[in-house]
Amino acid sequence: MSFRETLKELVEEVEGGLGAILMGYDGIAIDEYIPAGSDFDISLLAVEYATLMKEIRRTVEVLQSGDFEELAVATGELRVVVRVVNDEFFVVLIIDRDGNYGKGRYLLRRSVPGLRAALS
Amino acid sequence: MSFRETLKELVEEVEGGLGAILMGYDGIAIDEYIPAGSDFDISLLAVEYATLMKEIRRTVEVLQSGDFEELAVATGELRVVVRVVNDEFFVVLIIDRDGNYGKGRYLLRRSVPGLRAALS
Repeated sequence: MSFRETLKELVEEVEGGLGAILMGYDGIAIDEYIPAGSDFDISLLAVEYATLMKEIRRTVEVLQSGDFEELAVATGELRVVVRVVNDEFFVVLIIDRDGNYGKGRYLLRRSVPGLRAALS
Repeated sequence: MSFRETLKELVEEVEGGLGAILMGYDGIAIDEYIPAGSDFDISLLAVEYATLMKEIRRTVEVLQSGDFEELAVATGELRVVVRVVNDEFFVVLIIDRDGNYGKGRYLLRRSVPGLRAALS
């Protein structure tokens, strides 16, 4: 399955899925899937989350509580769930506030071994 | 209920609860509860998460997706769930990797109105 297909499957299988991005800690997206008709500015989100992910990785290292695995941020309108793929890349799933957060987390976690294998 | 009692209840009601802190974005803890016998360095975690929370609040503002409500970070050993109380304060719950994350999130969210009222 291509990166795009994996991301598309993630977004379409989650109720309230708004988009998904596979990207690097350097802020460059490898691939992304945004459903047609969405006016979501995923580029801005990608850049901002790359900065955030680096900061959290640093925090996790300082606290020495094992490897960084997952980040989730909830705001008034969105839930953003991010799963670490390897030292260079992570995958982001954006879900509507009222979407299925539990299923999103599950599918995102399940997608990681395939993405990791494809990136190695 | 005092701040300490609220934090204690949170930690004790969640399977795998390791500690809870009510703290400010300035990195100063108002109160905390760590079960006896824990060797967890909660002061270091508090300082690191205050930095992180400020960074995430800034990101959320840039992305304009509603108010910042919740952060969750999972690592190999811990899950840290943070809920915003108001513009100045947030509450942190630390759960063992195998603890009950769903119940932790629920109880944390439920604790916020009481904490907010007590802080105002």
